[in-house]
Amino acid sequence: MTETFLAETTALLERMPRVVRTLLEGLPEPWLGTRDTADGWTPRDVVGHLISAELDDWIPRVDMILSHGASRPLEPFDRFAHVERDAGVPLDRLIDRFDELRRRSLVTLSELVSDGDLGRLGRHPELGEVTMRHLLATWAVHDLDHVAQIYSALAGSYDATVGPWKAYLGILLRRDATN
Amino acid sequence: MTETFLAETTALLERMPRVVRTLLEGLPEPWLGTRDTADGWTPRDVVGHLISAELDDWIPRVDMILSHGASRPLEPFDRFAHVERDAGVPLDRLIDRFDELRRRSLVTLSELVSDGDLGRLGRHPELGEVTMRHLLATWAVHDLDHVAQIYSALAGSYDATVGPWKAYLGILLRRDATN
Repeated sequence: MTETFLAETTALLERMPRVVRTLLEGLPEPWLGTRDTADGWTPRDVVGHLISAELDDWIPRVDMILSHGASRPLEPFDRFAHVERDAGVPLDRLIDRFDELRRRSLVTLSELVSDGDLGRLGRHPELGEVTMRHLLATWAVHDLDHVAQIYSALAGSYDATVGPWKAYLGILLRRDATN
Repeated sequence: MTETFLAETTALLERMPRVVRTLLEGLPEPWLGTRDTADGWTPRDVVGHLISAELDDWIPRVDMILSHGASRPLEPFDRFAHVERDAGVPLDRLIDRFDELRRRSLVTLSELVSDGDLGRLGRHPELGEVTMRHLLATWAVHDLDHVAQIYSALAGSYDATVGPWKAYLGILLRRDATN
C-alpha cells in the first residue's frame, strides 16, 4: 500500500475545499450562527482554523521533517489564530482562501515528498517520535474531524426546531453531552 | 422566521446529494471500506439509508400529516432496508439514485406544503404529537447526522496510519468510545 498512500491521501485533501464550498456557499444565514458545542466553533471558525493549519501547520511540518528530522521538535500551532485574523471576512472569501492555500500546499507536497520520504522521522513536542506518513495521514483526518464539526454546528441551529425527534438524532444529543 | 423556514430547510436539503457526491465520488477504495463504529455503517450503507428515507420516510410522512393529521400514527421506517436492496450496486450509482430521489422529493414538497401547513399535527408511534415543521427540520438534521457519519467512517480508515496523533483527533477517539 506504500506506493498508493500519497495518491490516496492527496485525493482526499484536494477535494475538501470543494466539499466545504458545496456544503456552505449560499446557505441561508440562520444555519450559520451556531457553535458545535457551547464553547465550540461556528462553521466560519472552522474554515478559519483550516486556513491557519494550511499556513502554519502542514507544509511547515513537512519542511521541518525533511530538513531536521527528529533533531528539532515541530513548532506548536496556534489553534485560535483565526479569531483576530478573520474578523469581518465573509465566509465565501474564507472558503476561497482555504481553496487557494490548499492547492498551493498540494503542489508543494508533490514537489517535496515522494514515497521514499514517508518513513522519515520527526519529533512532536508532546507526542514524541512521528513519521512523515503519520503527519500526512493526520492532515487528512484533521480535515475530516473539523469538517464534520461543521455538520454539528449546522444541526445545532435546528436543535429546537426538530421537536420530539431530537431523541433520535445523535448529532444533537452528542452536542448536549459535551456541554 | 416562519416565512423563511421552508426556503432555509430546502436550501440545505437540495445541496446534500451534491455534498455527498463531492465527498465520495472517485475517492480511492481504501478510504471506503471502514464502518463508523464496530457495528456501524460504511459510507455506502449511509447513502443506502438516505435513499431508503427518501423512498419510505419523508414524503410519505408529509402525506400522512396532510391527509390524516394526528388521527393515524406515522408508519415506522426500516433502518436496514438498504442492506438487501443495494447489494452489488456501485457507490456512484447509489449517489445518482439519492440525487434523483431527493430532487423528486423536493418538487413534491414544494407542491404539497406551504407556510400555512407547518403547524399541522401528526402522530409519531413512539414520540407522540409532532408537527409538519418538526418533520421537515428532522429531515434536514437527519441528513447532517448521517453525512457526518460518513466522515467518521472515512477517518476510521486511517485510524492506525495517524500514529501518535490519534490522541488529538476527536473523530477517532469518539469512534473508539462507542465501540
